[in-house]
Amino acid sequence: MRKLMLSVVGVLAAMPLCAAEPAAAVDGATLARIRDASMHSDWAMTNLAALTDRIGPRLSGSPQLEAAVQQVAATMRTLGATVQLQPAKVPHWVRGLEQGSLVDYIGRPSGITQKLHLTALGNSAATPAAGLTARVVVVQDYEELNKRAAEVRGAIVLFHTRFDQRLADNGEAGTAYGQSVRYRNGGPSAAAALGAVAALVRSVGGADYRLPHTGNTSFKPGQAAIPAAALSAEDADLVQRLAAQGPVSMQLLLTPQTLPDADSFNVIADWRGREKPDEVVIVSGHLDSWDLGTGAVDDGAGVYAAAGVIEVLRQLNLHPRRTIRFVAWTNEENGGRGGKAYAAALSGNADKQIAAIESDEGGGRALGISAAVRPESLAALRPVIDALRPIGATALKHNEGDAGADIEPLQVMGVPGFSPLVDARSYFSYHHTAADTLDKVEPQSLQSQVATMAVLAYFLAEMPEPLPRYSIAP
Amino acid sequence: MRKLMLSVVGVLAAMPLCAAEPAAAVDGATLARIRDASMHSDWAMTNLAALTDRIGPRLSGSPQLEAAVQQVAATMRTLGATVQLQPAKVPHWVRGLEQGSLVDYIGRPSGITQKLHLTALGNSAATPAAGLTARVVVVQDYEELNKRAAEVRGAIVLFHTRFDQRLADNGEAGTAYGQSVRYRNGGPSAAAALGAVAALVRSVGGADYRLPHTGNTSFKPGQAAIPAAALSAEDADLVQRLAAQGPVSMQLLLTPQTLPDADSFNVIADWRGREKPDEVVIVSGHLDSWDLGTGAVDDGAGVYAAAGVIEVLRQLNLHPRRTIRFVAWTNEENGGRGGKAYAAALSGNADKQIAAIESDEGGGRALGISAAVRPESLAALRPVIDALRPIGATALKHNEGDAGADIEPLQVMGVPGFSPLVDARSYFSYHHTAADTLDKVEPQSLQSQVATMAVLAYFLAEMPEPLPRYSIAP
Repeated sequence: MRKLMLSVVGVLAAMPLCAAEPAAAVDGATLARIRDASMHSDWAMTNLAALTDRIGPRLSGSPQLEAAVQQVAATMRTLGATVQLQPAKVPHWVRGLEQGSLVDYIGRPSGITQKLHLTALGNSAATPAAGLTARVVVVQDYEELNKRAAEVRGAIVLFHTRFDQRLADNGEAGTAYGQSVRYRNGGPSAAAALGAVAALVRSVGGADYRLPHTGNTSFKPGQAAIPAAALSAEDADLVQRLAAQGPVSMQLLLTPQTLPDADSFNVIADWRGREKPDEVVIVSGHLDSWDLGTGAVDDGAGVYAAAGVIEVLRQLNLHPRRTIRFVAWTNEENGGRGGKAYAAALSGNADKQIAAIESDEGGGRALGISAAVRPESLAALRPVIDALRPIGATALKHNEGDAGADIEPLQVMGVPGFSPLVDARSYFSYHHTAADTLDKVEPQSLQSQVATMAVLAYFLAEMPEPLPRYSIAP
Repeated sequence: MRKLMLSVVGVLAAMPLCAAEPAAAVDGATLARIRDASMHSDWAMTNLAALTDRIGPRLSGSPQLEAAVQQVAATMRTLGATVQLQPAKVPHWVRGLEQGSLVDYIGRPSGITQKLHLTALGNSAATPAAGLTARVVVVQDYEELNKRAAEVRGAIVLFHTRFDQRLADNGEAGTAYGQSVRYRNGGPSAAAALGAVAALVRSVGGADYRLPHTGNTSFKPGQAAIPAAALSAEDADLVQRLAAQGPVSMQLLLTPQTLPDADSFNVIADWRGREKPDEVVIVSGHLDSWDLGTGAVDDGAGVYAAAGVIEVLRQLNLHPRRTIRFVAWTNEENGGRGGKAYAAALSGNADKQIAAIESDEGGGRALGISAAVRPESLAALRPVIDALRPIGATALKHNEGDAGADIEPLQVMGVPGFSPLVDARSYFSYHHTAADTLDKVEPQSLQSQVATMAVLAYFLAEMPEPLPRYSIAP
């Protein structure tokens, strides 16, 4: 999941698309053929199943991720694309045991403890091998944390911030995520700075099936890591209810390890442009995933929504002016080293990077396009929206931020960035949980993402002149 | 959860309730006061929270169940009810380690296995201490099992039957459950008879959050138990997909233990009748629960829907002619020993048992009443339905089977049996899982169950003449 949020995105552009402008030199009939072929191909779904069923979770440093690199590379070669593996050193954090229980609270019958459902956050430190026991301080936000700083030393802090599913239901899933995820990202570090012995966050997600949602946490430079975990929503509620009645004491055992950085690779597969093969339009998703589920919605779906673009162009034997470059990024989840390695390899010159598209908001139905471009460039995208009208992917949203964590370094260098706008209402119900599995991706929704990315990518690669550059803040 | 299903229940009775009949001797205004007091009391919810938050899971034989017996007994004494503990010896099955993984299948990259989410079924035997590895045979039903009998010897059988959530959404949750649960109940025994080394069932439930749903399984007399577990729906799908492509091999480790029977108790609390105190109308739920969740919907809600009846009568200082007897049954989930002990203590004479009500279909909103009575008795219940009309609990369903597993022995002896009809659309999403927690019970829904049981129980205890006897088949 991309780290910056749609909350920073501008309002839905009610652009005057009917304004007079030079006729696009891209043939609408070709875009329609690309759309229709995408909506009839089961190639992406079949290959997503092979990825998630045969390999499963793909955390950076795991043998699964490297098996996935090989699997995806082999698959792209069968399409006739030119494949290269771009090396990147990736963090290697490994989950261990994870156990928690409430060992004392008001009204506890003698000898009884309450088991908690929790999972360590990426970058969590380990507890002592025998675990640790401490009282729990429940806070709603950073303000309360600071107000109660004196209680925090020696305690386990629980950040208890609810995910706003109503926002997600109203098409603002990214905003809902952003409101909660700041505590997962920064809460443990802030608690550690005040002397907490461990930190927990209420799971960042919208469904209550006692699923803990993992994800990365970050410790500020100079701040030693402490044990950090996500509690299921139900268990966070339980702790909060008991803590409202009196002191609560928790036992916690986490044994994650941070190993030396591991070797990994971006999988790059080029579909050669017919006129300007050195100019590239990127279609992409990230291949790594968290380790609890099988990484179908985050982000196997994005990888194969992007790979499907090449498959459709092969099917139709279409080579646009420029090269369409598929990238399966490594290490989006806990380091972003894949995106950084790609940008670094450009040595400061991104001139040939014409545009970059990333799908990383799940396998939901495509509703349109989010475009981080100059506002005046939006009108030029009209043929894309027109071609997507029959499948309902007509929204065009102006985005002032990153369009995907992996392509953000390119966007900072001035490359126009895009992502499919997708129906993400249920995305955060499964995100970073064990329930991120293949069944959560509807075949037709994945087809609609292939169609959206394929029409957009072909258009961008076929335009006589590229869109103007557009830089976002780093 | 009661073991017999609403699938054996008769059709919704469109009874001619307007037919001429003797005026009921129960005052409608009193029934209305009971209803209103129930809808304004938070006593049941508060005490349900104390049960689930402070004690949690309550499997037979556990210290939690016995703590719950003491907690509920103390709570009922505070209401001024006469409390007795009725002993029952209960099975004592204890869950151990439970791990499963797919260790071979077509397309598996070297060194990679797939972790499965599963949980042992009650009565499961243990695997060898090092686990067992065997090929998997996936069957849809008993017919396929028998057809493929030759493949089953030495294999792990997976019964892959989907829970029909559409049926549940249409008010037939019990039917949906019944269709699937027969494989949980009888599948492992049938597989064992054909020489299977272990048996798995697709989780019986309606939500896909990778939750395994536990529950009891039964081995036929003379059939040695084998290891038996429920696979999450997602993992069952995964196994099925891989098995459709080629041989699948699974490693399984289960270490449950069956210990000697343990001591437990039904909690009985009498609210004394003013004229015929030796005649009793039972209001009840079961106190034991499965060990994964905190037993809020199954069946803490039922226990406190029933206990709330006494609280409301105390609030209003109402004593009907007959005694209203609250019972928190022990051991519904894996033995039914509580209900059997109560019936056995009657020594064949249930004459003073005027009626029995049990709530055991979750904490959903009450929609009316299911009545296992003579069809001609239904009309007599009109004042109850009239009193419940303002809260919408107006359905009156004739039931030809048991109205609750714990009261079934009484019904066999001729005691009219009742249960609140409840909205159970989401019940089987949480049933027997770790997600059976307090937040799944809406306070107003629980109030509606208290109201329904209180109005019905008061009415039955106040009628000048009891309803005629009605025996169900054992």
